[in-house]
Amino acid sequence: MKDFVFQNTTKIYFGKNQLGHLGEEIKPYGSRILLVYGGGSIKRIGLYEKVRNELKSKGLTVFELAGVEPNPRHTTVNKGADICKKEKIDVILAVGGGSTIDCSKAIAATRYYDGDCWDLVTGKAPVTQALPLFTVLTIAATGSEMDCGGVISNVETNEKLGLVDPLLQPKVSFLDPTNTFSVSAYQTACGSVDILSHIFDCFYFADDEGKMDMIDRVMEEVIKTVVKYAPIAIKEPGNYEARANLMWAASWALNGFLGTGTVMAPTCHMIEHEVSAFYDITHGHGLAILTPHWMEYILDETTAPQFKKFDVNVFNVDASLSDIEGAREAIARFKDFVFNTLGLKSRLSDLGVDDKNFAAMANKACPNGILAGYKKLTPSDIEAIFKMSL
Amino acid sequence: MKDFVFQNTTKIYFGKNQLGHLGEEIKPYGSRILLVYGGGSIKRIGLYEKVRNELKSKGLTVFELAGVEPNPRHTTVNKGADICKKEKIDVILAVGGGSTIDCSKAIAATRYYDGDCWDLVTGKAPVTQALPLFTVLTIAATGSEMDCGGVISNVETNEKLGLVDPLLQPKVSFLDPTNTFSVSAYQTACGSVDILSHIFDCFYFADDEGKMDMIDRVMEEVIKTVVKYAPIAIKEPGNYEARANLMWAASWALNGFLGTGTVMAPTCHMIEHEVSAFYDITHGHGLAILTPHWMEYILDETTAPQFKKFDVNVFNVDASLSDIEGAREAIARFKDFVFNTLGLKSRLSDLGVDDKNFAAMANKACPNGILAGYKKLTPSDIEAIFKMSL
Repeated sequence: MKDFVFQNTTKIYFGKNQLGHLGEEIKPYGSRILLVYGGGSIKRIGLYEKVRNELKSKGLTVFELAGVEPNPRHTTVNKGADICKKEKIDVILAVGGGSTIDCSKAIAATRYYDGDCWDLVTGKAPVTQALPLFTVLTIAATGSEMDCGGVISNVETNEKLGLVDPLLQPKVSFLDPTNTFSVSAYQTACGSVDILSHIFDCFYFADDEGKMDMIDRVMEEVIKTVVKYAPIAIKEPGNYEARANLMWAASWALNGFLGTGTVMAPTCHMIEHEVSAFYDITHGHGLAILTPHWMEYILDETTAPQFKKFDVNVFNVDASLSDIEGAREAIARFKDFVFNTLGLKSRLSDLGVDDKNFAAMANKACPNGILAGYKKLTPSDIEAIFKMSL
Repeated sequence: MKDFVFQNTTKIYFGKNQLGHLGEEIKPYGSRILLVYGGGSIKRIGLYEKVRNELKSKGLTVFELAGVEPNPRHTTVNKGADICKKEKIDVILAVGGGSTIDCSKAIAATRYYDGDCWDLVTGKAPVTQALPLFTVLTIAATGSEMDCGGVISNVETNEKLGLVDPLLQPKVSFLDPTNTFSVSAYQTACGSVDILSHIFDCFYFADDEGKMDMIDRVMEEVIKTVVKYAPIAIKEPGNYEARANLMWAASWALNGFLGTGTVMAPTCHMIEHEVSAFYDITHGHGLAILTPHWMEYILDETTAPQFKKFDVNVFNVDASLSDIEGAREAIARFKDFVFNTLGLKSRLSDLGVDDKNFAAMANKACPNGILAGYKKLTPSDIEAIFKMSL
């Protein structure tokens, strides 16, 4: 296992009756709030009104940036940062899912940068300061509510890149499972796969010697939590227990704890970001299709034992299978879970993806010619995985 | 499950080569350091010298409070607070185990109180401010390195009470498993039982409906981590993997995560504190003896299912047993683990405890006439548990 540094400062209010603390938490940071949200679902579920009333009752002044895209764009970030500069915004409040929160993080940093946010995302300029960020979460998926990273898309260059800095860590996040009751079956499925993929990216699939045993065990329980509750939440959207377990699982999948003792290797995320960047598909659906094909592609005698362990510990299958048999069974069961139980379509072509950009996408996924992970991948490996997934 | 608030701000440096970050982390908080430690074991393992050199190399001025007791006394806290006031200390650095850290927390708060620290411990006066606290941990046990509570003893009044305040949360803690290689088999055993007891206190033993499923599952994996690695660390004191897993398990057993969704009920801790308060025994050993007797005492048809679940999920025993059979088996296995595998003596009388103070101790454990927990206990219940444990 590796030496590591762990810190996560975000304060979480979890549960049904917590929103009344929002104003009191924000107030010490200032009175001029930029409320950031997406396509308006927060209005449909009445959350917009509740948040506005809460802020108003505490004497806070609210400005708005609406219409954040599912894959948030750098142009929207720039728009938000301009509002912050012009209106002397003190605090950003993101109400929505991972896209809204990611966009808000980039706005928070760009507020203090005299230029295009894309310079910060590409690392051309450093993050030097950021506005304090608060979030009210509406979907269990990205974990952005409890981490310091975000992903921003540039549709002009077909790039989708991460912006990660400790300054972007939310101060306080409000996690009310009832705010996820209206999340569609499709988005619940996609969010659940995103959670699972974050755990895989925390190096669940890696040699045992590179990890801490306790963390490996805990990972399996978070995976099992998602495997148990995602189908329930899809069938019974208003099941509080299912929504609560998924919500808390999402936060813990990527808040640093499950990465302690290892070096994270977000292989499938890096590959999927290229698909989203070129075709603007739903991230979790892209992951659902690519992950099992990635597993198949890297399956050999060195990777088989961990895949088999996944099968035995998560899906409770017979431990007496050989490593290769167990690994094949694991991949089959994972496919069955995402494509049958969660009901997601199984081919990239189902999402409008074609093979025209595979070579360019594969190259972009490997900025240094190689992509780290359980098995190191070259652009030609990634192109092969794209083709298998088409 | 209950609504909850979760936050844990402590930054952790974990691993073999991290102490070089100590000075740089402390420096922003000031230059005058009070180094607090216990009986001198940190000198035997060379840690004292390493810490002093690190602080010196960063230009920091070091004052010392040595000799913190295993059950730290309020008089020692007062002594430390006096040094802080007189020497204008900026930062407290605790190097040691839970007792040293707990004592340091109380010193940090008493620095800003014009009176006896016992007023803060008993709640007669509030904690209003605290010096920043840093820790270098030398035993896996209390979790004090990553929480905001401490326990202080008053030998004049035979009281052992908790002082809990967010201001007491360590800023940064250094967890190097090699610093625990020299921990004796006996203290390793006692520390391990303390970790387990913290998880039980986070309401692992409670009705399912009061909990979040994911947390219950994670609890079991942390329990299994301790059950697996404590015997290895006892047999092979220099086994890094065992020491590292125990160390990280200790921090997570009581840092708030495993308590999310429930209300903590530190039943056995409250009962044991009375034994330590009257007889100054090792806390973890007291817990080891009291816990299985508490289990036996509260065993009935309502509590049996969760005890059986513990048996099945932690000790991998046959799920086909009846609840009561499974629960009895669980208690037998837990006893076997602490008294045979870990080698701890099984009677309070082995530790010099007699029955003279049982009534007084039982009353003190229930300040309001009742002690919360899986089963609510009255003073006469607690006295019965003491007698069973004698």
